[in-house]
Amino acid sequence: MSETPITHEHIIKSYDAELARLLDEITRMGQLAGEQLAMAAAAVEERNSDLAARVVEGDNAIDALEHDVSHDVLRLLALRQPIARDLRDVLAALRIAADIERIGDYAANVAKRAIALNQNAPMRPAASLPHLAQVAGGMLRDVLDAYRRSDAVAAHEVWKRDVQLDTLYTAMFRELLTYMMEDPRNITPCTHLLFMAKNIERIGDHATNIAENVYFLVHARPLVEERRKGDHTSTLVD
Amino acid sequence: MSETPITHEHIIKSYDAELARLLDEITRMGQLAGEQLAMAAAAVEERNSDLAARVVEGDNAIDALEHDVSHDVLRLLALRQPIARDLRDVLAALRIAADIERIGDYAANVAKRAIALNQNAPMRPAASLPHLAQVAGGMLRDVLDAYRRSDAVAAHEVWKRDVQLDTLYTAMFRELLTYMMEDPRNITPCTHLLFMAKNIERIGDHATNIAENVYFLVHARPLVEERRKGDHTSTLVD
Repeated sequence: MSETPITHEHIIKSYDAELARLLDEITRMGQLAGEQLAMAAAAVEERNSDLAARVVEGDNAIDALEHDVSHDVLRLLALRQPIARDLRDVLAALRIAADIERIGDYAANVAKRAIALNQNAPMRPAASLPHLAQVAGGMLRDVLDAYRRSDAVAAHEVWKRDVQLDTLYTAMFRELLTYMMEDPRNITPCTHLLFMAKNIERIGDHATNIAENVYFLVHARPLVEERRKGDHTSTLVD
Repeated sequence: MSETPITHEHIIKSYDAELARLLDEITRMGQLAGEQLAMAAAAVEERNSDLAARVVEGDNAIDALEHDVSHDVLRLLALRQPIARDLRDVLAALRIAADIERIGDYAANVAKRAIALNQNAPMRPAASLPHLAQVAGGMLRDVLDAYRRSDAVAAHEVWKRDVQLDTLYTAMFRELLTYMMEDPRNITPCTHLLFMAKNIERIGDHATNIAENVYFLVHARPLVEERRKGDHTSTLVD
């Protein structure tokens, strides 16, 4: 029986190694999604359709990583049967990977619309988009950093920042409406910009989802707070 | 030791009961989401803002059910430590509940925008929305039915139907653009309708996600097929 502690230690070490691998995969996913978003914004700013096409193509790598995470989670649950904090760790990984996968989709959609946009004359309101992307990208970076450090306070700070992104989005939405009303030729490109801005606003929502998961991971209870209304444009009448 | 089989049977029965409860919760969630979508569409068709307000309010019930599902999944994983098909069942429940929760959000968003829309004069293209909602609602109902019966073939059929919804969405998108170009006063209400149509198109995407989960549940391998491009409007140039 003298080997039992060693074997037990071995199991624990191996479990920790698997969890660390999961965290690495998610960190890699998050970095890729952040890069995709920044490149999509650059593609708009520089009217660079080749760059946009690379972003559309690059989404596959994020999808493949999410597939790896799901596979590893299934394997880890089946073989290790974790409980309590360990179980929350594994399920948070699954959820956070799903959020990052969606963020990648949104970045790819911004890039796809950038290609269509670049076939029209330049539009002044397009200049507001990179800033929106920068704010959303900052939220993503900081919430993933909070996740790596299991820092619920930092996660909550990111969660609160979403209101700034919503304010920027609403301002851009109103700006786009005035451009559309000014000249009917602006309508199609502005419609693309509306959806691009909305995609970035949604990236902020997914960053707040990740923040909620970090909070639950640490505290084993949900982050309950009066949720900001998010997109205020849905109630605009004129 | 004679009690072992009885205890074992008891554990199995109790596990099955917990899984059945999970399935019931998800079925209830799906029914609610389907009703919410139908009511949101009716609120548009009848220009009924009271009904729309009830849909916005009603989303809380779906969110609460998703919370119950997440809680039950965590408990089931910790206490029962399922493997193989049982584990896939539990994780599918978690994912499908998340998809239904999003579908509920989209239905509530359609309702929220219906309230804004009803403050403007009636718009002819609004008449296309209920049909879009009907197609998406049909996909949701059928994929949940496939889920209850663990029927991967039926799930795959629903998955294929998403292309019809995308076609309807693209037609409505184009119709809305022409209305916006015709009269600048149409721009704000048509913008709401653009997002409402997009919300319903996204409900179809979530129904296909559920279909993919049912397929994986049954076959333990992902549904791999050339994915339909979905929203074709992102490449529209004029």
